[in-house]
Amino acid sequence: MTASESTRDMLGRDRLIPVARARSLLLSKLQDRKPETEKLSLAEALDRITAADINAPEDLPPCDRSTMDGFAVAAADTFGATQSMPAYVSITGDVLMGIIPAGAVTRGTCYRIPTGGVVPQGSDAVVMFEHTVPVDEKMIEIVKPAGSGSNIIRKGEDIARGSLALPSGWRLRPSDLGLLAGLGITEVDVFRQLSVGIISTGDEIIDHAQPLVPGKIRNINAVTARALISRCGAKVHDYGIVKDTEASFFKAVEQAVAENDMVLFSGGSSVGVRDLGEQAIERLGPPGILVHGVSLKPGKPVIIGLAGSTPVFGLPGHPVSAMVCFDLFVKPAIHSLSGITHKTDTFEPVISARLMRNINSAAGRLDLVRVQLVRENGERCAYPVLGRSGAISTMTRANGYFLIDENSQGLLSGSTVEVYPYS
Amino acid sequence: MTASESTRDMLGRDRLIPVARARSLLLSKLQDRKPETEKLSLAEALDRITAADINAPEDLPPCDRSTMDGFAVAAADTFGATQSMPAYVSITGDVLMGIIPAGAVTRGTCYRIPTGGVVPQGSDAVVMFEHTVPVDEKMIEIVKPAGSGSNIIRKGEDIARGSLALPSGWRLRPSDLGLLAGLGITEVDVFRQLSVGIISTGDEIIDHAQPLVPGKIRNINAVTARALISRCGAKVHDYGIVKDTEASFFKAVEQAVAENDMVLFSGGSSVGVRDLGEQAIERLGPPGILVHGVSLKPGKPVIIGLAGSTPVFGLPGHPVSAMVCFDLFVKPAIHSLSGITHKTDTFEPVISARLMRNINSAAGRLDLVRVQLVRENGERCAYPVLGRSGAISTMTRANGYFLIDENSQGLLSGSTVEVYPYS
Repeated sequence: MTASESTRDMLGRDRLIPVARARSLLLSKLQDRKPETEKLSLAEALDRITAADINAPEDLPPCDRSTMDGFAVAAADTFGATQSMPAYVSITGDVLMGIIPAGAVTRGTCYRIPTGGVVPQGSDAVVMFEHTVPVDEKMIEIVKPAGSGSNIIRKGEDIARGSLALPSGWRLRPSDLGLLAGLGITEVDVFRQLSVGIISTGDEIIDHAQPLVPGKIRNINAVTARALISRCGAKVHDYGIVKDTEASFFKAVEQAVAENDMVLFSGGSSVGVRDLGEQAIERLGPPGILVHGVSLKPGKPVIIGLAGSTPVFGLPGHPVSAMVCFDLFVKPAIHSLSGITHKTDTFEPVISARLMRNINSAAGRLDLVRVQLVRENGERCAYPVLGRSGAISTMTRANGYFLIDENSQGLLSGSTVEVYPYS
Repeated sequence: MTASESTRDMLGRDRLIPVARARSLLLSKLQDRKPETEKLSLAEALDRITAADINAPEDLPPCDRSTMDGFAVAAADTFGATQSMPAYVSITGDVLMGIIPAGAVTRGTCYRIPTGGVVPQGSDAVVMFEHTVPVDEKMIEIVKPAGSGSNIIRKGEDIARGSLALPSGWRLRPSDLGLLAGLGITEVDVFRQLSVGIISTGDEIIDHAQPLVPGKIRNINAVTARALISRCGAKVHDYGIVKDTEASFFKAVEQAVAENDMVLFSGGSSVGVRDLGEQAIERLGPPGILVHGVSLKPGKPVIIGLAGSTPVFGLPGHPVSAMVCFDLFVKPAIHSLSGITHKTDTFEPVISARLMRNINSAAGRLDLVRVQLVRENGERCAYPVLGRSGAISTMTRANGYFLIDENSQGLLSGSTVEVYPYS
C-alpha cells in the first residue's frame, strides 16, 4: 500500500470512497503549512488573513470619554437624588469636543459634556440630560443618582495598550479593520493570497470566446473555476486549454505545480483523459494520488492528489460536477492552506426549508440535490431543480443545495432539509 | 405633515419609530430607480447585476453528446437484452473527441463513444461499458436495454438557442458566468456599481493614520464603512473628515450628494452635530428627513433622509451603532438601488443556535445582540458578547447577531435563536 488508500477492488475497478473520508485524507496532509506574508494598508486588507498577533500599540479609547450628552459630575454628589429631593450642582465649565477640558470638576460642581467628550479631572460619572432639570444658566437639579463610572467609557476599556487586539490567523472583517484603525495601526502583516493554477484539457474544448467549430464545446469550467477561486480569496493563473497528449499535458501540470500553491485541471471525464490525469500526478512523485473517485452524485470521478506538497485536483469535465467537487474539496483545501486558524469561519450558514417533493437516493452514496428556495405563505420551500447533472442551466436555476447522506435512500416531500445557499 | 413621518411628540422630543417601519419608509421611496449600465467581460462580471435579459445566441450543447463512456447504438437493438439473452452488436466505428463522427450507426452496429463525444448519425442511445461484454475486437454483447435518448444530452437541451438564459436584474454568480461562457457570450451589460460617498465629522475625530493628539479619537467609522460598502458591491468616495460647522459640513454633504448615489455621514451622535446633520439633509430640498431615531439598541440615533432621489444616512458616531445601522438600513438600500430584481438573494442565511445565558430587552425596542457562536459537544451555542455597545472590540469578538423583537422583554438561556453570521 502507498500513502493513498487502495481504491481498486480485486477486478481492478474503482472502489469509491466516501466524501468525508476523501476530504479528511486530503486535509490531513495539508496541515502545518503557512503561506508567505506581505504588508498591506487597511484599505487593501479586507478578508485577508493576519500573519502575526497584533497587540494594541495604544489605549482605546485614549482617554475617559462620555457616552451620553449630559453633565460630568462627582458621582458622590448624586447619591440619594430623587425627583422630590434633587441634588443641586453648579455648572462651572463646558467640555468641547476633541479638547482636554481645562480645570477640574469639584464637589458640588459639574461641566456640560457632549457624547464623546473627554471627561474632566475630578469627575467620575456623567448624568444624562434626561435625569436633570435646569434651575438657571448656572445650576441644575439632578433627579437620579449616578454610580461612579456611569456613562463613561474608560481609557483602554475597549482595548488596553499592549493587549492582544487580533490573533494571528484571523480573517479581517470590516469590524476588525475598524479596531485596527482605532488603534492607529495603518499596515498589517497578512499571508499572501494563494495562487491556483487552472488547466483545461480535452480535444473537444475550445475557448469560450472562439467561434464554434462543429463537434467542439466551449470551455465552461475555466470561467466558473476562476470565479469560484476568487470567491475563496485566492488568485488564478489560467494555463488555458492544453492538448490531452502526454507531452502537452504532463508539461502543463508540471509547470502549474511549480508555479502555484494548488492546481486544478478539468475535462478528464472520459476514461482516457482521466488516466492521463492520474499519471500526471503520479509522475511528479509521492504522495501522488490520494483519491480516485468518491461515492458522490454528481461529482463521482474527481481525482485528488498531492505533487510534493501541492494539491492537484482533477475535476470532472461536466461543469456541474466540477462545481460540486469545488465546493466539497477545493474550497476546504484553499481554506486550510490560507493560514486561517481561528474559528470565526467554522460555521457554514444554512437555511432550513421544507422539501417540496420526494427525492430518491442510492444508499452508500452522498447525493447533492440542488434546489430553488422560494418563500410561500411565509414558509421557506425547497424545490429540487430537475434536469441532467451535466446541464449548467440547472445550476443557474438553483440558489442552494442540500445533502442526502450515505445511509439514506431518499427523503419524503415535507421533510425539513438544511440548504447551503449558493452565493 | 410632510412626506416624512412625524417623529416628535407634543414636547418636541423624538418619538422613535420601529426599525421595520423606518426601513419600509426608506425602501418604498427607492423603487423604480435603475443605475446606468456598462459592458464587462465575463472575468470582470462576477457579482455584477445584469442590465438586460440575455437570450441564448446558440444551442447548448451545440450537438447531441454522450454523457457516458460506452457504445452509441440504435436503442431498438437493445430492447429485451438481458444477461442470459444479450443483444449482439458489431463495432463499426470510433467517435473521437471534438470531431463530428463520419458515417452512421445502422441497425445491428455501434460506435465506441467517450463521455462528451458527439453522438453519430443513426444512434439514439448510448449503452454504458458496464452494460456490455466484449465478444471480440469487433463485437459486443449488450446485457441491458437502453431507451431512446439514454445517456445522451441533446443539442439545446441545456439551453435552446433564442431562449432566455438569464433575466435582467440578476446577480452573476460563478455558475451564471459559466452558462454565458457555454453560450459563447464574452461580454455582458451590467448596471454600473453604485457610488457611496462617506463623510466623517466631529471636532474630536482625526484620521486613523495621524499621530494621536490628546482629546482626539481616531476615525474608525470611515474604515469600517469602506469595507462594508465594498462588501455590498458598491464603490466608495471618501470625503475625509469635515469640520462640524455649518459652512464646512453643508458644503461637503451637498457635494457628496451631487457626486454619488448615496451618502453616509457619521460622527453626529452629540445633539449639536445631529441637528447639523438633519439640517444638511433638509436644506437640499424634499423629501428631506424620513426618519430621525429608531427604537433600536444599539443604533437609536440614526438619521435617514432623501436629498432629491439620493438617500443620505446619518450614522451614529459609536462605531458599533454605526455598523448595526449599516446592516439594517444602508445594506438593504444599496441592494434596492443596485438593480437586483430577482429572487436569488432574498434569503439571509441564518444559523440556529442555543442561547447560553438570559438576555433582558426593553419592550417596544428591537435589540440586536452580538454573539460568539461556538460548537460544544456537536451543538451550536450562542454566547452573547458582553461589553459596551461603543466598544468596537465587542464586534471583533462576535461572529454573528440575533434580534429580540419589540414585543419581547428578553430571552431565557436555552432558547433557540436565529443567528445572522457576520461575514
